Amino acid sequence: MAQHNAFYAQSGGVTAVINASACGVIEACRKHSDQIGKVYAGHNGIIGALTEDLIDVSQESDEAIAALRHTPAGAFGSCRYKLKDIETHRAQYERLIEVFKAHDIRYFFYNGGGDSADTCLKVSQLSEKMGYPLTAIHVPKTVDNDLPITDNSPGFGSVAKYIATSTLEASLDIASMSATSTKVFVLEVMGRHAGWIAAAGGLAGQGEGDPPHLVIFPEVHFDREAVMARVQESVQEYGYCVIVVSEGARYEDGTFLADSGNTDAFGHRQLGGVAPTLAGMIKQDLGYKYHWAVADYLQRAARHLASRTDVEQAYAVGEKAVELALDGQNAQMPAIKRTSEDPYAWSVEPAPLAEVANQEKFMPRHFIREDGFGITEECRRYLSPLIQGEDFPPFDNGLPRVARLAKHRVERKLPEFKI
Amino acid sequence: MAQHNAFYAQSGGVTAVINASACGVIEACRKHSDQIGKVYAGHNGIIGALTEDLIDVSQESDEAIAALRHTPAGAFGSCRYKLKDIETHRAQYERLIEVFKAHDIRYFFYNGGGDSADTCLKVSQLSEKMGYPLTAIHVPKTVDNDLPITDNSPGFGSVAKYIATSTLEASLDIASMSATSTKVFVLEVMGRHAGWIAAAGGLAGQGEGDPPHLVIFPEVHFDREAVMARVQESVQEYGYCVIVVSEGARYEDGTFLADSGNTDAFGHRQLGGVAPTLAGMIKQDLGYKYHWAVADYLQRAARHLASRTDVEQAYAVGEKAVELALDGQNAQMPAIKRTSEDPYAWSVEPAPLAEVANQEKFMPRHFIREDGFGITEECRRYLSPLIQGEDFPPFDNGLPRVARLAKHRVERKLPEFKI
Repeated sequence: MAQHNAFYAQSGGVTAVINASACGVIEACRKHSDQIGKVYAGHNGIIGALTEDLIDVSQESDEAIAALRHTPAGAFGSCRYKLKDIETHRAQYERLIEVFKAHDIRYFFYNGGGDSADTCLKVSQLSEKMGYPLTAIHVPKTVDNDLPITDNSPGFGSVAKYIATSTLEASLDIASMSATSTKVFVLEVMGRHAGWIAAAGGLAGQGEGDPPHLVIFPEVHFDREAVMARVQESVQEYGYCVIVVSEGARYEDGTFLADSGNTDAFGHRQLGGVAPTLAGMIKQDLGYKYHWAVADYLQRAARHLASRTDVEQAYAVGEKAVELALDGQNAQMPAIKRTSEDPYAWSVEPAPLAEVANQEKFMPRHFIREDGFGITEECRRYLSPLIQGEDFPPFDNGLPRVARLAKHRVERKLPEFKI
Repeated sequence: MAQHNAFYAQSGGVTAVINASACGVIEACRKHSDQIGKVYAGHNGIIGALTEDLIDVSQESDEAIAALRHTPAGAFGSCRYKLKDIETHRAQYERLIEVFKAHDIRYFFYNGGGDSADTCLKVSQLSEKMGYPLTAIHVPKTVDNDLPITDNSPGFGSVAKYIATSTLEASLDIASMSATSTKVFVLEVMGRHAGWIAAAGGLAGQGEGDPPHLVIFPEVHFDREAVMARVQESVQEYGYCVIVVSEGARYEDGTFLADSGNTDAFGHRQLGGVAPTLAGMIKQDLGYKYHWAVADYLQRAARHLASRTDVEQAYAVGEKAVELALDGQNAQMPAIKRTSEDPYAWSVEPAPLAEVANQEKFMPRHFIREDGFGITEECRRYLSPLIQGEDFPPFDNGLPRVARLAKHRVERKLPEFKI
């Protein structure tokens, strides 16, 4: 089999384990050096391909690549940039082909979420629609856990472990203070449309009455009166109240609790500030002393508390992507399949990208308790395996050690291209 | 030597390692069972003593006590409650004596910060001013690191490690996203009057230009123009800007950047919301896309990322407190002494409580860079040893294991007392 080069890039919001997938892709490519020559990483995702801004990964040491496994965020730079349709924006695709031709790239690995799956799907059509022989594989990643088909999305398990642990730890804090001080604690978590991360907060409560006393999902319309009644009940019964609230919490008419009014590059509303909004309501309606936290990027960057299951799955989908590509399976995504619930077991199976792109997987209603304020046992059985195991990074001088890449740029062969 | 009982209680804001001090006190008491009979823990601090709400620690298993070492927050409940002067509020002190007499308590261990040191000092005067033979020892604890005499305060090292790690991890995230998305990240940290925790964020930056690009201290007057200039410079030079801002950041006239208008039981202003305030200013003045996080209780409850140095010191001051008490040294606080800088070494030495109570230790000006936006090498040399070493708790089912205490209440012998 002839040897050609591979392109790998990271897209969308990064996670604690997206670099573990990079590590899986790169190490698998190195193992198949008879078929894959060099790995070129796109600097800042697909933008790196369009602008011919390529990092020569072959110049990184094995140690540096291995260190990606315990380094959070996107080591090669990510992007929020969605390709338009081939039909209307042919020039972009022609440029991609020029770049791929110039660098003999025949394998395309795109590591991202739903929007990125769409980009990868469009790139995968280069072969069929424009006659360039390319195999494109999407490597799944999203803290939001909203990709379809795959049982769960790499990146989610670690955020879930972080939020469950933080909820547990902070709840002990409030419980200590509640006699004379803070009565209500509100933790705001990510999850624009799907309450998966909020649900993970629910894992902290393991017995009747355990905090969190309320989980507020985007899937359940926010009813101020019902929430306040539950908060008051909790303070009266337990002395305090812990709330995990999704950034996507919204009223029945679809208005978000806290809408900052900004939009991101994909046109999504940029949210934030639900926790102070909700805490303010509680102060106003019930008068309780409160504290609130907004974990924001801390939750998705917290590699120090990654789930070992998540790290292993992130690595495995990267590795599998290369195997699928070498098998000539274009437009696929390695998906995680739960092969057994107890004991938990999983495998990685290919899924057609066309069925993945632009789909969001919401929390099923039976994962949310009937009162709307917590998770069901079925949800717990689904979530719990995903946070199992620890995979602490090595520490130097008190801080996590992270990969230091040389990031040698590949010499440009083409004229500049404005995106 | 006759055998008498001991009282232990936790006070003020809790930390990731205050229970490690409890563990140190209780295990040391158990070792000296010839002199110390039972340990009674005050439920919710000194309030437990006043209301005769005592937990019989002698009924807890050795395993449960050992587990306190890796359990965050205050296992016996804390309080924000400051005793008034003996002269004006004699009844309270007479009540304390009644309770201590009823339960044969001759040793008093109070685990807290500056305000609690004041309470402990007042209790220590029972012996001299009211003739009750009591030895009172203050066990230091505060995430704010603002206790005088002691080289550092137990609780601070773990918060420092958490903030330094979180800053490092989140910075990698922003760096990944900055090409097409978030340009500025603001992390709000605790520290009402002293910038020690903010300074710890500075540890994340280990080389020239490394994030955080700005640390905003309460000790340096907030100058909007200067801050914006530095943010712009950072975005232009590095592509992004990471800011660690203290909740105590304030203008030259003393107004806090974000003043919620609430006060706690000690009369301190309750702060919060500096991060969104500052992020909003940046959006308004420079137009950059931002994200912000408020770590709040997460930072001081994060036992999963405790500093081993901190855990060991927290345990050691608890242990030493018992030794000092048995040595008859009333009104003392075991303080940490730095005996060597490199390699770092420390010992625990007694300090007179009268010199500790109601004093706040601020960051020395030479710990803050001349431009006011970062830490100096001298500050780094001081801080770095405090975050050294990890002491991960055991995990069960993906979550940290925490102590489960039986908390048997001691039978009340006295009439009710209203506080």
